[in-house]
Amino acid sequence: MRKHSYQPIGIFDSGIGGLTVANAIIRKLPQEQIIYFGDTAHVPYGDKSADAIRYYCLRIAKFLLEKNCKMIVVACNSASSVAYHVLTEFFKDQALFVNVVDPLVEATVTKGYNKVGVIATKATTQSDVYPRQLRSRAPNMKVQSLATPLLAPMIEEGYVTNNISNVILENYLSDTRFTNIEAILLACTHYPLIHSNISAFFDHKVDVLDSTDIVAEAVFQQLKRNELLNHQKCNGHQFFVSDYSLSFEETTRIFYKGEIDLEHCALWQ
Amino acid sequence: MRKHSYQPIGIFDSGIGGLTVANAIIRKLPQEQIIYFGDTAHVPYGDKSADAIRYYCLRIAKFLLEKNCKMIVVACNSASSVAYHVLTEFFKDQALFVNVVDPLVEATVTKGYNKVGVIATKATTQSDVYPRQLRSRAPNMKVQSLATPLLAPMIEEGYVTNNISNVILENYLSDTRFTNIEAILLACTHYPLIHSNISAFFDHKVDVLDSTDIVAEAVFQQLKRNELLNHQKCNGHQFFVSDYSLSFEETTRIFYKGEIDLEHCALWQ
Repeated sequence: MRKHSYQPIGIFDSGIGGLTVANAIIRKLPQEQIIYFGDTAHVPYGDKSADAIRYYCLRIAKFLLEKNCKMIVVACNSASSVAYHVLTEFFKDQALFVNVVDPLVEATVTKGYNKVGVIATKATTQSDVYPRQLRSRAPNMKVQSLATPLLAPMIEEGYVTNNISNVILENYLSDTRFTNIEAILLACTHYPLIHSNISAFFDHKVDVLDSTDIVAEAVFQQLKRNELLNHQKCNGHQFFVSDYSLSFEETTRIFYKGEIDLEHCALWQ
Repeated sequence: MRKHSYQPIGIFDSGIGGLTVANAIIRKLPQEQIIYFGDTAHVPYGDKSADAIRYYCLRIAKFLLEKNCKMIVVACNSASSVAYHVLTEFFKDQALFVNVVDPLVEATVTKGYNKVGVIATKATTQSDVYPRQLRSRAPNMKVQSLATPLLAPMIEEGYVTNNISNVILENYLSDTRFTNIEAILLACTHYPLIHSNISAFFDHKVDVLDSTDIVAEAVFQQLKRNELLNHQKCNGHQFFVSDYSLSFEETTRIFYKGEIDLEHCALWQ
């Protein structure tokens, strides 16, 4: 199917954490129109089953394709880990696809670390996608992952620098498996909001890698390679959620720097 | 519609927190058969919209009625707050209904407190159901509520007595609106698991009221009044979840004392 540069880029996440990725893409490619979908009816994906996540992702991708997107960015690590291959299997002829795992793995491998840590939701951790991909590309790299399920709700409450966030972060990051790591991968799109706190915990001696700018660069490169970069002024962005509540509206302000109108899209009812 | 004492009692919650209520009902009425439904595909309800919660509750009640339940217990404060009137409007001829709000309000009013605190999810707090009902029954009672959204994920991680739970609890409970309260209402079915920690925070000088035994008593009284108490040996209990994952299976062990087989019931797919 022939794609055109003026078509929008679809970005989706289980909720509003993926707005950290949308922010980075908009900053990198201000001329592109973004259509964002947050599956707030099912947030968080982190403890859902892999099959349920696959089904949610297929429905959302179908919605974004009906919105005429030239590219779909899976801005959720849980979804990228368990559903990306299903999405490309169903829809690879209809749009370009970018996930948040591959670019972060690529960036980590090129640095040549000996030992890295990965923090993520339960779904991402159980999928083992980061250790598996990193080891296949860099067989000598030691990879230690830890599920850190309280971080996402903590960030959604706006707790990023208080005694609660300090004690939760210390509890997770002082885990002995992270002894002597050279880098830590933030494998959840919520975590860029605590990037600096995590760096501070390690006295700024450990590289903290998140997928925001790295994914924005991957989006740029893939559009460029396919001659699909938009050079005209873009239409306004659109932000859809599968469930609308005041609480989601408030949380959005934590993740997105700019005016935003959440539109309710009843995909599931 | 004529009901029979041998029919099961349906109990549902957004997830597995409602098992605290199921435990209490099984303890109080060991001869009753329980059919439990945890809507793990949508857990948590606490930040979902009221209309979405209403729709989920209608589908779940319909499922429990098809399982021939004589009574449906809404073992979730968020659902009781925003969806109970809808459930009775649709189905009151087909089963008896019990929610977790009314019995706790009743028990609080009879104690004649001057000032009470309420902790709950965002959905329950925003519904204002506890302050409204308490004030209408006891106009001179001061009621202070606070949304405590990190408590449920904290408990689901099994953090009930460590430095994380201590600092989160202290942060919430030291809120000045709780100064001089005589009782605190645990208005979420997860919170009975931290009943003793909350009591300890207040040096055991504040009554801590949760809805487990109080709701079990209300179930008993309503069945008795309708001559629907089961006096025969009951069939085995059944536990359904709308999404099955290892993570939910593990969390179940935190909430339920006994052998449990979670059955996946794909209500939404």
